[in-house]
Amino acid sequence: MQEKEGYVLAPCCRSSGDLQTYRRMVEIGDKIKGLKLDRPERWKERISEEVQKLLSLKEQLGDARPQKFQLKTPKGTRDYNPRQMAIREGVFKTIINCFKRHGAETIDTPVFELKETLTGKYGEDAKLIYDLADQGGEILSLRYDLTVPFARYLAMNKINTIKRYHIAKVYRRDNPAMTRGRYREFYQCDFDIAGQYDLMIPDAECVKIVAEILSELNVGDFIIKLNTRLLLDGMFAVCGVPEDKFRTICSAVDKLDKTFWEDVRSEMVDEKGLAPEVADRIGEYVRLNGQLELVDQLMQDEQMMKNKMARQGLEEMKLLLTYCQLFGVLDKVSFDLSLARGLDYYTGVIYEAVLTTEKAQTDGGDKNEPVGVGSVAGGGRYDGLVGMFDPKGKKVPCVGVSIGIERLFSIMEAKAEAAEGKVRTTETQVYVASGQKNMLEERMKLCNLLWEGGIKTELSYKKNPKLLNQFQYAEEHGIPFLAIIGEQELKDGVVKVRNTSTREEETFPRDKLLEEIRTRVGPS
Amino acid sequence: MQEKEGYVLAPCCRSSGDLQTYRRMVEIGDKIKGLKLDRPERWKERISEEVQKLLSLKEQLGDARPQKFQLKTPKGTRDYNPRQMAIREGVFKTIINCFKRHGAETIDTPVFELKETLTGKYGEDAKLIYDLADQGGEILSLRYDLTVPFARYLAMNKINTIKRYHIAKVYRRDNPAMTRGRYREFYQCDFDIAGQYDLMIPDAECVKIVAEILSELNVGDFIIKLNTRLLLDGMFAVCGVPEDKFRTICSAVDKLDKTFWEDVRSEMVDEKGLAPEVADRIGEYVRLNGQLELVDQLMQDEQMMKNKMARQGLEEMKLLLTYCQLFGVLDKVSFDLSLARGLDYYTGVIYEAVLTTEKAQTDGGDKNEPVGVGSVAGGGRYDGLVGMFDPKGKKVPCVGVSIGIERLFSIMEAKAEAAEGKVRTTETQVYVASGQKNMLEERMKLCNLLWEGGIKTELSYKKNPKLLNQFQYAEEHGIPFLAIIGEQELKDGVVKVRNTSTREEETFPRDKLLEEIRTRVGPS
Repeated sequence: MQEKEGYVLAPCCRSSGDLQTYRRMVEIGDKIKGLKLDRPERWKERISEEVQKLLSLKEQLGDARPQKFQLKTPKGTRDYNPRQMAIREGVFKTIINCFKRHGAETIDTPVFELKETLTGKYGEDAKLIYDLADQGGEILSLRYDLTVPFARYLAMNKINTIKRYHIAKVYRRDNPAMTRGRYREFYQCDFDIAGQYDLMIPDAECVKIVAEILSELNVGDFIIKLNTRLLLDGMFAVCGVPEDKFRTICSAVDKLDKTFWEDVRSEMVDEKGLAPEVADRIGEYVRLNGQLELVDQLMQDEQMMKNKMARQGLEEMKLLLTYCQLFGVLDKVSFDLSLARGLDYYTGVIYEAVLTTEKAQTDGGDKNEPVGVGSVAGGGRYDGLVGMFDPKGKKVPCVGVSIGIERLFSIMEAKAEAAEGKVRTTETQVYVASGQKNMLEERMKLCNLLWEGGIKTELSYKKNPKLLNQFQYAEEHGIPFLAIIGEQELKDGVVKVRNTSTREEETFPRDKLLEEIRTRVGPS
Repeated sequence: MQEKEGYVLAPCCRSSGDLQTYRRMVEIGDKIKGLKLDRPERWKERISEEVQKLLSLKEQLGDARPQKFQLKTPKGTRDYNPRQMAIREGVFKTIINCFKRHGAETIDTPVFELKETLTGKYGEDAKLIYDLADQGGEILSLRYDLTVPFARYLAMNKINTIKRYHIAKVYRRDNPAMTRGRYREFYQCDFDIAGQYDLMIPDAECVKIVAEILSELNVGDFIIKLNTRLLLDGMFAVCGVPEDKFRTICSAVDKLDKTFWEDVRSEMVDEKGLAPEVADRIGEYVRLNGQLELVDQLMQDEQMMKNKMARQGLEEMKLLLTYCQLFGVLDKVSFDLSLARGLDYYTGVIYEAVLTTEKAQTDGGDKNEPVGVGSVAGGGRYDGLVGMFDPKGKKVPCVGVSIGIERLFSIMEAKAEAAEGKVRTTETQVYVASGQKNMLEERMKLCNLLWEGGIKTELSYKKNPKLLNQFQYAEEHGIPFLAIIGEQELKDGVVKVRNTSTREEETFPRDKLLEEIRTRVGPS
């Protein structure tokens, strides 16, 4: 019904009754349009008649006036436009390619889980979980991450070994800084290895994967901080932290990447009641970072070596660093005693990747909205989580990493902005065009020939489009070739092929067209 | 911590306190393990001590017994395992490739919308919308389809022309037959063209796209039924249906694909109060289907041609069928007066694709669970929907199609089952192996060499895996090549490459390995 545009008021149809009325309005509009112009006196009169009918019909449309409502996406969410999607797809491709290079399978789980599946997994953060309304039936919540659904999946299907990636959206009722690539709905991009294996081998592969992805995305310099929960707990014990304060002191340490030691110390002492000398001892340790030499240094620390957990943690770290060296990523990692990670469920190695240069920003991004600050990947070992779902408590050791892909999107977007280059949002190879009238059917036939030949092709949806407009469309959309026909080409059984950028034109027999186009566009 | 598996009871840790206790249990377990075997008398005694400690600690774990809860996905949802994902990715690839061949861009929208965005768009089906709990802030609902979010996106961003596809999950609180590929969470796969264009050109491209996708997926014979809302309304008027009953009679007609005419007639007459002779007149029309000859036949129908809507509908259908012919899909379409489609918002052409052979079933699928019955794609023109969102009611004409991809997955899965062929769930090209001990570090180095060279490579996560197990892994996972090293190969600076299926082995210098592997696996 598109030909009726523009001469009737477009009402805000809210019901099929309205739609009926609206349709009659359209009919009346058509009558007006169809009036013969050769009898103007009759014409005027009829218009008045029909306009009267239209006005009365318009009154019948109770809520014909556009309703007042908010035209927006929910707080903390966003649409992706085609340009953003093209960038997003590029980032996904790099990441998925890396996961596949490491032999990973993929799974998918529902966007919501039974609420009880998520209960007791996130500590204080549980308040950020989105619940679904109780509409009868099961009580459901939107997934908060991909790790808990993964653990539920393993337990439910009694899977003991798997190497899988999962890319999907997760939901947190947070107050995120959207300008910095943080949202309430955001992608997670997880790679996990489940199974009973020898110490630190899968753990090292996770570090390797983070290094590969961040290098390939070319987002600037980065460092992957490493630590282990065992060593952290051992260190707390050595410093004199009471065992029941391990977790709360751990979450104070976790803030060291965002705040100064003095503030963390004050939280420990003033808020959490730690003895000042204990806090100071912790302060000595958490300022340490390095690589194998730091492990050796701490292995000289008698206090540390007396503690079983600390000793074991140091041995694990030594092994991990050795494997990182074999995987060629030692220069990307830093053993960092201040790394703690928030989540309760980690039981072994933990890691977190941070960007160390503000590449996107210095490249010309908006100076007021820094991107690229902070963590872009994180993870660790969680050997107890699957057992929480198994009816017999059977454990499946797991280690994994989550790529903070929204931050990476934001950086890539800022880079694309800065480069001012065109991001193609389609892959169209040929635009079928004609400068003559009544060529629609011939254009459609030619278009079909190209489609059947697997060539990505478009044509104008107008009956008689102007040639210049067709050229312009191809140019604006970066379509490399035009296939042009007119009476002469049809008579000669040929098609003219125009290179959009060089403006060179060549003419080919119709039956050679596919072949010629294919040579020019390459394999699709 | 995986080396500690097996000798302590794995508790169901519910808090970090539990985790502490659990960790102490592990420590004690370690002590037992570490006891020297040369002094058995001391050994027994110590074990008793430690076991006592363990038992008392175990008691401290209040809810150490695995908690009773349901280990399941929410009703009407499912996980996708790696095999299903591999099939799903194949189907997506075919579909996306088709959309791109037609020059489409892609967008994404949030999984939930403001509830008011969905209000008044789905008629009676609104009861199937999932609402989110009111946790303060905005009132939200999960999206019910991709069409309404698309219309909201266009209005919000003032976009008048776009050709886009959107593949994402939608949510309906239905009672679906999951065995037939119907779920409460399911993918929709939409292609839509928005813009003010000439009659039936984009409409025909939508039909073409459905035909291409269903042909390429090779799901058996199918037919795309075509009709228009204009013609339906015109026909109702001609038959004598009162205007206020058009929509309700339309939804009765919509049931003709699932039930007999007699039942539909009785719904019209007994439930909806239509005069029997009016219903019978409708009955005459809705049994008609054909192609251009049917259009011509109806154009001879004086009653029909007197009605403006019917006449216009027939003209549009004639044009659409002509364009389908030009696009080479006339043999796949049927102009069918019984096609009505449920949704209120259609204003012009409507279409629906149905499979006409039970290919998947007759190929050997489970006879008790027929798949492939019924609609696998549908759509139509909806010129009024975007205007419902525009503050000034500005209209953007749209036409689109939605591919019923879950049904197609089910069919493809059944086909894969029937074929009994292996579906590879990873793309690994090389498995690095060794038959000798203490080769872990060398295997890791070789693996890294291959990763850096872009070869998809795996290795065993065991320190000293058996060669036979490594061969078996490669065979079971369809990994085409093994790269084998041992002391001799290292000394000679070579790597042995074994073809998993032929079992042939060749030896190459290490610096030629990448090249040789690449020739064998082809471009990645």
